Amino acid sequence: MIKAGIIGSTGYAGQELVRLLLGHRETEIVWYGSKSYIDQKYYQVYGNMFEIVPDTCLDDNMEELSEKADVIFTATPQGLCASLVNEDILTRVKIIDLSADFRIKDVSVYEKWYGIEHKSPQYIGEAVYGLCEINREQIKGKRLVANPGCYTSCSILSLYPLVKEGIIDPDTIIIDAKSGTSGAGRGAKINNLYCEVNENIKAYGVTTHRHTPEIEEQLGYACGKKLLLNFTPHLVPMNRGILTTSYAALSGKYTYEEVRAVYDRYYEKEHFIRVLDKDVCPETRFVEGSNYVDVNFKIDERTGRIIVMGALDNLVKGAAGQAVQNMNLLFGLPETMGLEQAPMFP
Amino acid sequence: MIKAGIIGSTGYAGQELVRLLLGHRETEIVWYGSKSYIDQKYYQVYGNMFEIVPDTCLDDNMEELSEKADVIFTATPQGLCASLVNEDILTRVKIIDLSADFRIKDVSVYEKWYGIEHKSPQYIGEAVYGLCEINREQIKGKRLVANPGCYTSCSILSLYPLVKEGIIDPDTIIIDAKSGTSGAGRGAKINNLYCEVNENIKAYGVTTHRHTPEIEEQLGYACGKKLLLNFTPHLVPMNRGILTTSYAALSGKYTYEEVRAVYDRYYEKEHFIRVLDKDVCPETRFVEGSNYVDVNFKIDERTGRIIVMGALDNLVKGAAGQAVQNMNLLFGLPETMGLEQAPMFP
Amino acid sequence: MIKAGIIGSTGYAGQELVRLLLGHRETEIVWYGSKSYIDQKYYQVYGNMFEIVPDTCLDDNMEELSEKADVIFTATPQGLCASLVNEDILTRVKIIDLSADFRIKDVSVYEKWYGIEHKSPQYIGEAVYGLCEINREQIKGKRLVANPGCYTSCSILSLYPLVKEGIIDPDTIIIDAKSGTSGAGRGAKINNLYCEVNENIKAYGVTTHRHTPEIEEQLGYACGKKLLLNFTPHLVPMNRGILTTSYAALSGKYTYEEVRAVYDRYYEKEHFIRVLDKDVCPETRFVEGSNYVDVNFKIDERTGRIIVMGALDNLVKGAAGQAVQNMNLLFGLPETMGLEQAPMFP
Amino acid sequence: MIKAGIIGSTGYAGQELVRLLLGHRETEIVWYGSKSYIDQKYYQVYGNMFEIVPDTCLDDNMEELSEKADVIFTATPQGLCASLVNEDILTRVKIIDLSADFRIKDVSVYEKWYGIEHKSPQYIGEAVYGLCEINREQIKGKRLVANPGCYTSCSILSLYPLVKEGIIDPDTIIIDAKSGTSGAGRGAKINNLYCEVNENIKAYGVTTHRHTPEIEEQLGYACGKKLLLNFTPHLVPMNRGILTTSYAALSGKYTYEEVRAVYDRYYEKEHFIRVLDKDVCPETRFVEGSNYVDVNFKIDERTGRIIVMGALDNLVKGAAGQAVQNMNLLFGLPETMGLEQAPMFP
Repeated sequence: MIKAGIIGSTGYAGQELVRLLLGHRETEIVWYGSKSYIDQKYYQVYGNMFEIVPDTCLDDNMEELSEKADVIFTATPQGLCASLVNEDILTRVKIIDLSADFRIKDVSVYEKWYGIEHKSPQYIGEAVYGLCEINREQIKGKRLVANPGCYTSCSILSLYPLVKEGIIDPDTIIIDAKSGTSGAGRGAKINNLYCEVNENIKAYGVTTHRHTPEIEEQLGYACGKKLLLNFTPHLVPMNRGILTTSYAALSGKYTYEEVRAVYDRYYEKEHFIRVLDKDVCPETRFVEGSNYVDVNFKIDERTGRIIVMGALDNLVKGAAGQAVQNMNLLFGLPETMGLEQAPMFP
Repeated sequence: MIKAGIIGSTGYAGQELVRLLLGHRETEIVWYGSKSYIDQKYYQVYGNMFEIVPDTCLDDNMEELSEKADVIFTATPQGLCASLVNEDILTRVKIIDLSADFRIKDVSVYEKWYGIEHKSPQYIGEAVYGLCEINREQIKGKRLVANPGCYTSCSILSLYPLVKEGIIDPDTIIIDAKSGTSGAGRGAKINNLYCEVNENIKAYGVTTHRHTPEIEEQLGYACGKKLLLNFTPHLVPMNRGILTTSYAALSGKYTYEEVRAVYDRYYEKEHFIRVLDKDVCPETRFVEGSNYVDVNFKIDERTGRIIVMGALDNLVKGAAGQAVQNMNLLFGLPETMGLEQAPMFP
Repeated sequence: MIKAGIIGSTGYAGQELVRLLLGHRETEIVWYGSKSYIDQKYYQVYGNMFEIVPDTCLDDNMEELSEKADVIFTATPQGLCASLVNEDILTRVKIIDLSADFRIKDVSVYEKWYGIEHKSPQYIGEAVYGLCEINREQIKGKRLVANPGCYTSCSILSLYPLVKEGIIDPDTIIIDAKSGTSGAGRGAKINNLYCEVNENIKAYGVTTHRHTPEIEEQLGYACGKKLLLNFTPHLVPMNRGILTTSYAALSGKYTYEEVRAVYDRYYEKEHFIRVLDKDVCPETRFVEGSNYVDVNFKIDERTGRIIVMGALDNLVKGAAGQAVQNMNLLFGLPETMGLEQAPMFP
Repeated sequence: MIKAGIIGSTGYAGQELVRLLLGHRETEIVWYGSKSYIDQKYYQVYGNMFEIVPDTCLDDNMEELSEKADVIFTATPQGLCASLVNEDILTRVKIIDLSADFRIKDVSVYEKWYGIEHKSPQYIGEAVYGLCEINREQIKGKRLVANPGCYTSCSILSLYPLVKEGIIDPDTIIIDAKSGTSGAGRGAKINNLYCEVNENIKAYGVTTHRHTPEIEEQLGYACGKKLLLNFTPHLVPMNRGILTTSYAALSGKYTYEEVRAVYDRYYEKEHFIRVLDKDVCPETRFVEGSNYVDVNFKIDERTGRIIVMGALDNLVKGAAGQAVQNMNLLFGLPETMGLEQAPMFP
């Protein structure tokens, strides 16, 4: 049994990790970390866990935790993991960081977009960007995994084959993204109150959202050069789900079948990526609760552009499920272990 | 492996049964029955099942199905199961009927409240009312199970110990119930359109809802005499979940501890019934996707009444999960098999 | 033109008052009071008011305001109005208090249920309970109006004729109420976050909600004796709307027509109370944005009980609209002025 | 008093027209047309209109109606208005068509995108495109107004100044639009059921939505040449509201102030267009129930693109409110009459 500790287990992503690990037959959770609920019963914070999790919330002591666990998940705000990690800890445990601390290789880019100083730049180099479908082999054996962002995972996975194969002009990429409200976290903010979010849609972080450089970096690796793109997130009145609608100019004339063949080549064997049938649009409701990403595209011959759509559950494939998938790779388990439940609808 | 066939697999309850059986390691689904989608791929009806269920929908031929399956689930409108079942079929397979056809022992009560003629009254006697926590031993070995209604399960399980022990006056019971919209089915009706249900709450079926006699019958068994009660369902703008708030006069002076002890005696060992901590009210969000029923009560000394609350997921413990629990009992499997996932929140 | 000042204009009820008064042709708002947003533009707090309300938020100085206004609305937490009001102020302006401070005649009941000391018990006697359909004549000419609670208005207006005429046994009244989330206010609390309220229904304040004694007092006046009842509120995932479903034993045999005649006698001429056609259940969507209360009832001959339903918009007839109706009475204007808009659906 | 008839008064847009005209002091509704509810009371179709509209629904007889009314609104599916209108009718009444029949000047474009034959192409020339802020003078005195589409109004009004002034390259325009579900109409379709729309977001009509050529035509007039653009609508789980997020390459270097000055020049005096403060994003909740369009933009210096956002209520400025605004122009009334209510929030 893998002993897992979660720092930040009382946020939405942390709790989703709890839910998934409870159903993972090779893992037991040994530490329910929390900043706000220390010494409270976990089920008092999340009533769904009553009679399932009898544990009490502990503090965010990574040092102590690293002596009890085989793997630590940090589902915390930016900066915390980087401020806690050190060589001793990394010698003892694997760390899967769900925050952005180790996602961006250029520390100055991180510090500019996040507005904080990076406390452990020395580990950025060794950290691997944990998008399993792209970096599968590099993840195995690593001790520090940077779990990708939710918007990022959806954006990258849906566009990756096109960028990699030069089918689209990378300088024309525009990503219009829509997210459920759990992505905004469980903080008590007026903007996230029911009556403020319900019956509303809005863009936010226009031109400044922090997932922008992360997408740019990863897609830049795919096409072998730097690229700049537009990324605009929107808040949607629903609990879970991310949909990205991306636009780019095709680099030439392509038929549906040609582009489809490329997607199939990359994703046919990927368990968690479903390229939908022709003309079927991804919908967030059909991935809810699961680790799937649904992808599809449509060519617009009139404008010479392609529209690419991706849908995932921000708390699963966009956070906790991806983290479990990374854990499976790190520990040599089947990659789908604990992640095989069908999406729940309605 | 148990071979399962589902008649009515393309309704919401039928699809939930598919989801649960896919995660049940001793079962395989051999028949996806449907009235409206014959010859269509199941995943074209429910996009969440893409790349998970490759099967094509078949018709509602119970005769043919009974030769291929070990158990048949009928998740169909009232009357269909009673019109299809016969001795040959019952000799070959177990039937778990999610409709109301075999729930009510008095056929005249059934015919009056449902407004249809019962086509197989000869099997009403042998059918067992499949509320496992109450009829566990009677269910084992049966060949025909009447799976309880969603409102009914919540109402009965929350009130049962009080009625059975004479703690409340059974003639004073009032049940005010609230349900998510999946309970209304997947039929294309204006009343169930998004814009009609959203931002609204209403009562319906006031004094005439068909779950009334079912609750009365079962609670009548508990107290050993006929009783009449008020049951008022409401439609709530949410997908899943039933909450019942029940009121009754206490038959005497009782303390919290005394009543609590009664609940514990009945339910402490029941895996799927969670009696919450004092003063914690059941909420539907905390049982979503799971087979749990959350129960609690509050004594009002001012009025001498007790308020009893129950919450469950209408598609799981209120339908498909209960059906799987019954299947487990029928086939001698651990009762919780395939039903162990934690509730999904948010 | 009536000069109106609003203390607490940045809560949901306060903002609804702004919306309604902007459409009231005999009123102008001279004071946008706020505790949290002093010196900010009102439209920065409520973006809907951009280019409509150019004013800046002022503090809660009732003394100063009373010299500029003809009427003061206090849409504030309990206790504030009672702590600010004095003889000087009452000499200069009319006060319509949307809080509970002057609703309950017995100060000890107020202090017990609200858990705070009443700072101005000397004005409780002169304050009038501002439910216009019941106390119309007493309101005219008063200087201090206690605007009723949202749940209370719905409960009282739907039950009043039955209690007053002795058609039901007042000791058997049970009110099961459901409210949209704007009733919980605009405070930044985790419990009111979108993801906590959405896809959920729960009871709260069971046996202890503060609107209980207010309903008991007013219905007690109607039947001429003290009564105790059960009142259970529920939180519904929608922005606006209150539905009450009330149960009581009939005091004798009554036909639909007899009870209907009583309702008609009381309400036929009431503009804002709509007694629906037989068998039509009130729904909150059909009163949204308006000052209407929709009422109906159903007799259950089996149990001898009557089920009474009422629906209103908690921010209009349950708060701001009722307050404007009171203002109209105080200033001798047509009672419906500024309140004539049809409900907005969907 | 203007006598108004509504053909298609029982759809969502038709009912919104009823709501607005009830509050318009110079209009009375003389005809509640309906295809599905002939001879039923209007309030039985829309319960909000109980005791407000006592009228019975009539058929869609435009001939007869034209003898009773001064203006006819057709809020019907495509093709109906074109099939009913004739010279006699147009001699007697003004027609404001909320369908697409007379919006597109090139009949072959209409027939290609809508897939139906145009029954009255002879009137396309004289019909005026009823976007008042752009065609105000041309609308006055006309007898046939093509009321713009909901997505179209939002897209055009938010982009118009930039296209007209050559600030963006018109061949780079990408419009990503999001709509509430009332835009899908009141038809009984499974796809529009509560449980199918709730907790979901999806794109639809990708590259093929019929509002595309309408936007292209109108923006083409603005820049004086044909243009092709991408328009992708999405369905959002909310009742009302459209948000468009548009992307285009700037034609040169522009500062915020320069672009802002252009918007102000076009819209400062427009009552219904609100250009928000710098960095404030339009949100649909802040225009709900009103005729406002909220507009803003953000320049991305990194990519050389501008992101333009617009928000309106699809049933008001996107349909019925726009129609009333057109009626006001046609009859020489103040353009804002009956449209002055503040947006309702929450």
